[in-house]
Amino acid sequence: MKQLNVGMIGGGFMGKAHALAYAGMPMFFWPAPAVPHRHTIVDVTEELAKNAAMKLGFDHYETDWRKVVNDPEIDVIDIVTPNHTHAEIAIAAAKAGKHIICEKPLALGAEQAKEMLDAVNEAGVKHMVAFNYRRTPAVALAKKYIEEGRIGKILSFRGTYLQDWSADPESPLSWRFQKKIAGSGALGDIGTHVVDFARYLVGEITDVNAVTKTWIPERPVQTGGTDSLGNVKGGADVPKSPVDVDDEFITMVKFDQGAIGTIEATRNAWGRNNYLTFEIHGEKGSLAFNYERRDELQVCFSDDPGDAKGFRTVYTGPNHPYGEGLWPIPALGIGYGETKIIETYDFFKSITEDTVVSPNFHDGYKIEAIADAILQSAENSQWVTVAKELSEVK
Amino acid sequence: MKQLNVGMIGGGFMGKAHALAYAGMPMFFWPAPAVPHRHTIVDVTEELAKNAAMKLGFDHYETDWRKVVNDPEIDVIDIVTPNHTHAEIAIAAAKAGKHIICEKPLALGAEQAKEMLDAVNEAGVKHMVAFNYRRTPAVALAKKYIEEGRIGKILSFRGTYLQDWSADPESPLSWRFQKKIAGSGALGDIGTHVVDFARYLVGEITDVNAVTKTWIPERPVQTGGTDSLGNVKGGADVPKSPVDVDDEFITMVKFDQGAIGTIEATRNAWGRNNYLTFEIHGEKGSLAFNYERRDELQVCFSDDPGDAKGFRTVYTGPNHPYGEGLWPIPALGIGYGETKIIETYDFFKSITEDTVVSPNFHDGYKIEAIADAILQSAENSQWVTVAKELSEVK
Amino acid sequence: MKQLNVGMIGGGFMGKAHALAYAGMPMFFWPAPAVPHRHTIVDVTEELAKNAAMKLGFDHYETDWRKVVNDPEIDVIDIVTPNHTHAEIAIAAAKAGKHIICEKPLALGAEQAKEMLDAVNEAGVKHMVAFNYRRTPAVALAKKYIEEGRIGKILSFRGTYLQDWSADPESPLSWRFQKKIAGSGALGDIGTHVVDFARYLVGEITDVNAVTKTWIPERPVQTGGTDSLGNVKGGADVPKSPVDVDDEFITMVKFDQGAIGTIEATRNAWGRNNYLTFEIHGEKGSLAFNYERRDELQVCFSDDPGDAKGFRTVYTGPNHPYGEGLWPIPALGIGYGETKIIETYDFFKSITEDTVVSPNFHDGYKIEAIADAILQSAENSQWVTVAKELSEVK
Amino acid sequence: MKQLNVGMIGGGFMGKAHALAYAGMPMFFWPAPAVPHRHTIVDVTEELAKNAAMKLGFDHYETDWRKVVNDPEIDVIDIVTPNHTHAEIAIAAAKAGKHIICEKPLALGAEQAKEMLDAVNEAGVKHMVAFNYRRTPAVALAKKYIEEGRIGKILSFRGTYLQDWSADPESPLSWRFQKKIAGSGALGDIGTHVVDFARYLVGEITDVNAVTKTWIPERPVQTGGTDSLGNVKGGADVPKSPVDVDDEFITMVKFDQGAIGTIEATRNAWGRNNYLTFEIHGEKGSLAFNYERRDELQVCFSDDPGDAKGFRTVYTGPNHPYGEGLWPIPALGIGYGETKIIETYDFFKSITEDTVVSPNFHDGYKIEAIADAILQSAENSQWVTVAKELSEVK
Repeated sequence: MKQLNVGMIGGGFMGKAHALAYAGMPMFFWPAPAVPHRHTIVDVTEELAKNAAMKLGFDHYETDWRKVVNDPEIDVIDIVTPNHTHAEIAIAAAKAGKHIICEKPLALGAEQAKEMLDAVNEAGVKHMVAFNYRRTPAVALAKKYIEEGRIGKILSFRGTYLQDWSADPESPLSWRFQKKIAGSGALGDIGTHVVDFARYLVGEITDVNAVTKTWIPERPVQTGGTDSLGNVKGGADVPKSPVDVDDEFITMVKFDQGAIGTIEATRNAWGRNNYLTFEIHGEKGSLAFNYERRDELQVCFSDDPGDAKGFRTVYTGPNHPYGEGLWPIPALGIGYGETKIIETYDFFKSITEDTVVSPNFHDGYKIEAIADAILQSAENSQWVTVAKELSEVK
Repeated sequence: MKQLNVGMIGGGFMGKAHALAYAGMPMFFWPAPAVPHRHTIVDVTEELAKNAAMKLGFDHYETDWRKVVNDPEIDVIDIVTPNHTHAEIAIAAAKAGKHIICEKPLALGAEQAKEMLDAVNEAGVKHMVAFNYRRTPAVALAKKYIEEGRIGKILSFRGTYLQDWSADPESPLSWRFQKKIAGSGALGDIGTHVVDFARYLVGEITDVNAVTKTWIPERPVQTGGTDSLGNVKGGADVPKSPVDVDDEFITMVKFDQGAIGTIEATRNAWGRNNYLTFEIHGEKGSLAFNYERRDELQVCFSDDPGDAKGFRTVYTGPNHPYGEGLWPIPALGIGYGETKIIETYDFFKSITEDTVVSPNFHDGYKIEAIADAILQSAENSQWVTVAKELSEVK
Repeated sequence: MKQLNVGMIGGGFMGKAHALAYAGMPMFFWPAPAVPHRHTIVDVTEELAKNAAMKLGFDHYETDWRKVVNDPEIDVIDIVTPNHTHAEIAIAAAKAGKHIICEKPLALGAEQAKEMLDAVNEAGVKHMVAFNYRRTPAVALAKKYIEEGRIGKILSFRGTYLQDWSADPESPLSWRFQKKIAGSGALGDIGTHVVDFARYLVGEITDVNAVTKTWIPERPVQTGGTDSLGNVKGGADVPKSPVDVDDEFITMVKFDQGAIGTIEATRNAWGRNNYLTFEIHGEKGSLAFNYERRDELQVCFSDDPGDAKGFRTVYTGPNHPYGEGLWPIPALGIGYGETKIIETYDFFKSITEDTVVSPNFHDGYKIEAIADAILQSAENSQWVTVAKELSEVK
Repeated sequence: MKQLNVGMIGGGFMGKAHALAYAGMPMFFWPAPAVPHRHTIVDVTEELAKNAAMKLGFDHYETDWRKVVNDPEIDVIDIVTPNHTHAEIAIAAAKAGKHIICEKPLALGAEQAKEMLDAVNEAGVKHMVAFNYRRTPAVALAKKYIEEGRIGKILSFRGTYLQDWSADPESPLSWRFQKKIAGSGALGDIGTHVVDFARYLVGEITDVNAVTKTWIPERPVQTGGTDSLGNVKGGADVPKSPVDVDDEFITMVKFDQGAIGTIEATRNAWGRNNYLTFEIHGEKGSLAFNYERRDELQVCFSDDPGDAKGFRTVYTGPNHPYGEGLWPIPALGIGYGETKIIETYDFFKSITEDTVVSPNFHDGYKIEAIADAILQSAENSQWVTVAKELSEVK
């Protein structure tokens, strides 16, 4: 059984999720395309790195990511660091001939993403951007219905991503609220997942028209190095610092195939935890999905008999995409880990079979271009056409 | 017990709903402000009118609405006719000194609505526009929470009204698809209910930015005089005629108090029947409502204990607005009739107590102005500010 | 249009519901089988009776029900009094040749019910017992699916009726907690509705095995004459009196067609308001219903394609039972009133068409026999066979 | 970091789940009590065993479980084989001084379970039976609320476990339908999970009264060695063989603390996939849980304000049991794997801290005794008291 050595840059929450995927992927998809071997992990201090290696099951640890990127034993570089570091690491990894999986959003903006895309194209390595939610089996099932024409031509798309972990003004100023590190706020952090859904399920977005809001203009400075996602409060005596990214955005979108839609994301929606949803209306049916109840896809077919028409609640399982590899019956339970396991499976398959996997850096770049257009639209209060040449970028 | 004689103009589906409300209101709210007496009903032919009188319990019937409007025995004129006739009847009724309740949308546009508003203002009669859904007890409860500050300053509003009764291209070209009769499509017919929710719960809308779509450009000509709401198909041999109104619209909105939002309505959402929803995020909590499950309001309070925070499903009953008059326990069941009974109660109370009821023609006019701005925005592809002077109109 | 004069005995909450049904039935079902005329209402004092007549729209009022029962102008006697008075009134009405609709449960037990059944049989009048919930359109749709064989042979039935209006120990000792007036507690008041569902949807119950509990052994004596359903608390200084009926029961049941099931009812289920549910599993599909969301029926068909199998949420409307008469699209909203309007329609149709309507006194009697068996089973801690001869009773 | 070597007996679906837990546990709970090392796996043939070792990440494989049980390098024996083999393996492992985690149900009946309990008691090793569902964070949260008295004294419990994977008569006769291998049918396979919930959340069960049914008396003989859980159909030409276990059971239960309840399980509930639910009513509140939406716990508190009372939907996360170790925000997603990871964490903690973990073999034995009583009750059609001496068994 072929084995691929992984060098992981970063050891936080996303590192945990990826490490679980490396361990679990062959258990679910066997024979695996290749067995991921957790070779080396990088974190910012030796103590953190050593601890992460033990915790996440890596053989080695390192504090200098350049060493790992250039280590000839490493086949795959996995980038799970804050957004502002993605480009430098990815470009170096591409130059070193490594296959790359990079956490989302790909970059701080389209320009930087383009450099990354050029680098992987030039190097001829495999590349993936980790918009994992589209690998929820229920989302893949929606894609299957659409591709098979079972809901007809799509007329409209509504997507939301609502959270509340930072709705409290005392929630600390993590890197996710700093433009120089995160690029943007709710837009890049969570909104891009909805943009990924929209492109995956409906098609290319051509025009956007948006509003952004920063509801909490300053937050307590974060103490400690970890990304506490709102679970640690600042306290009254902690100095505050400005937030320079969006807490919320809404946008209208137009698709090249004629559909229209809205996309919204906020981290100020009390009671919504990970409310990543879409609703799609087609000429022959409708789809609805809510990640908070991710085992389920809602589908309505217009040609059902008149006295038995309505949304079906389909729990994904062996009869649905990726079902053979997952659990033996529906509703045993798809968790966050499974989305990452499937992502890893598809990425490794693209390496061993030399095929193109989606979403890749090309997708990541286009999503950055759309995100840039959303910010530009909000600033100018008008429709912005996503550059036509995008479709010509390879 | 004081009695008020009602002259009802129109005998279709809305006539039935209003008639039930007249019969039922005193049973629910006793002592009633005044007992509605179903005096005379008007329909277009003698046969229709006579039949409607028997069916809906009116003492008299008539085919000439002008006679009824000018009948000195009549106290209240109830307008339940297609949209294009509202203005003429209402203005005549106002001149005759009758109190007026008029189905929504108030008029074919803001200009016409302004004439109606001027007429009732001049006549000094009571006036109401029948946006009944805001009188769902769960919606009134949302208003109560907001007014009591229990969810804090509102940050965002999302409203939808999704239906599917005309999603089939064979669904006939009723008057609701003809601009000269309906004024607009999904916008006027159902979208204005969401606009009413937005103004009622959040505040005045200052700016809109919209897209509209007509998905089914022509439909079979309707045979028969009734408003079949999609339940009768045209058939292959029925000639088709163009639709000149919107099937769907989406709009971004800005509120004068600082919140932002989206409003969407479509009649092409397979599987959604009467999916009138809102979600509101405030600084201290959130609200969510779906008319398809209208007994329930979802509310989340940010100050709930950390281990027991989440949306509460509150079933409205005796402890909630209008609860004393309705049913003795929650979930016995609020239907469409109850919203109309409450509407009638509040309207009659405004007459007997000489107070102002909402939504009235002033609200109806503002909603028309917002609807006009939505259409204008969609045509011009840009933000439209709802005329500032609106707020000065009395 | 034929008119039938109604004499209503009782003017409380159920009187209101029935009065609304008399007013509304022809509006929904036109041409009506006969138009109900609210002729005379009876309450215990002249003041109450006079007030009820004005409020509920009756022409006359009376304090002596015998006068009304024997009034030759009256065609229909409607009994909406506490349980212990049903038998005497109904038997007198039958002897006077009136058609009778009686609130549920029919009597204080099977023996009394049998006397009522004998009386109506002897008199040859029409009779109905008002288990209205089976006339929820979604429940009638379940019946239709079952009769058409769409879920196959039924294997199991689970029914519950959970409420919380008397879960508070300070909730007053209304007549519903006194055996001599109510006959039994949760069993008669709400559990019999589930028994009615079971018989309607599955078939005759042959054996029961039950447990009953009285969780709150004494309650504050009720002040005032009205049935406040828990909305008025007794207060610390109000003397308490014993409860001698069940607060909760659970029972296993066996059906003559081979299915098994459980039925449960309690008034001590905090958070459940009117949680009247069933779930039915058949060889070819399943059904689930919850009255708290009464516009919906959940149905799963086993022969749906493997990748699109799951419960459908069907909102009842024009394509479903009684839909032609109700509202023009689904989810406009079925409330408590609609169940009573349909009940009245079917009852009046049985009178004018001289047919047998269900549930009638025969059903009411059988339900009493089953309720008696449940109490006996709980007392003896063993299975009780519902008397075989029941099936021979006419 | 201390490491414990695991010898796993069995390599099917449950083996996968446990292997994922061994790999993932330290990633979630760090520092881990001890790091599980996947030392040796056993399957019935060398090919199967070798394959399982590669797939599930074990260093060694073996076909003779006795060798592994007696291997001095092994610290923990994990039994994930069909039910009829549990006792022999566990007793041998206990004699060899290994800590033992055994899949549920513990044994083929109480007598056999008692032997296993005696063996681990005598050996002084740690033992656990893998009723993993109680380790769903939402279930642990229910336990926390109950222990803190937040819903008061419990009055009633309703539990169900409904599935449909074998509802098709063509679904093969796997070992789960054979008494000599499985012990019982739906009762042991899934019903015991509900019994575990009942004992965990409410208290000891003292009496049961049950009905069992075998709806599909014969099934196609299974071809191939794997446990296909209904996903492979037999086909018309496959011979059939009798089913000698229950497809469904219902039981009433009494608890020693005074509550009553019902427990039901079936594998013939079309549309229910893994519908493991409970609803608990207490004097001060209620709880409801459905594993199909396992991130959520529903809770209603009776002392909420009158206008905001209702079930809260609490999504478990960092503020709830085990939350520190799991995902950083609620609704990222609890899957089946997480329940096993938590189970492994608690088991390993009991080993390193020398404490008693639940559910252990004592619990497993009591659950077997209750299951035996359920079968006996169904056979004798009467209440069966679970042997009093149970409570004295150590």
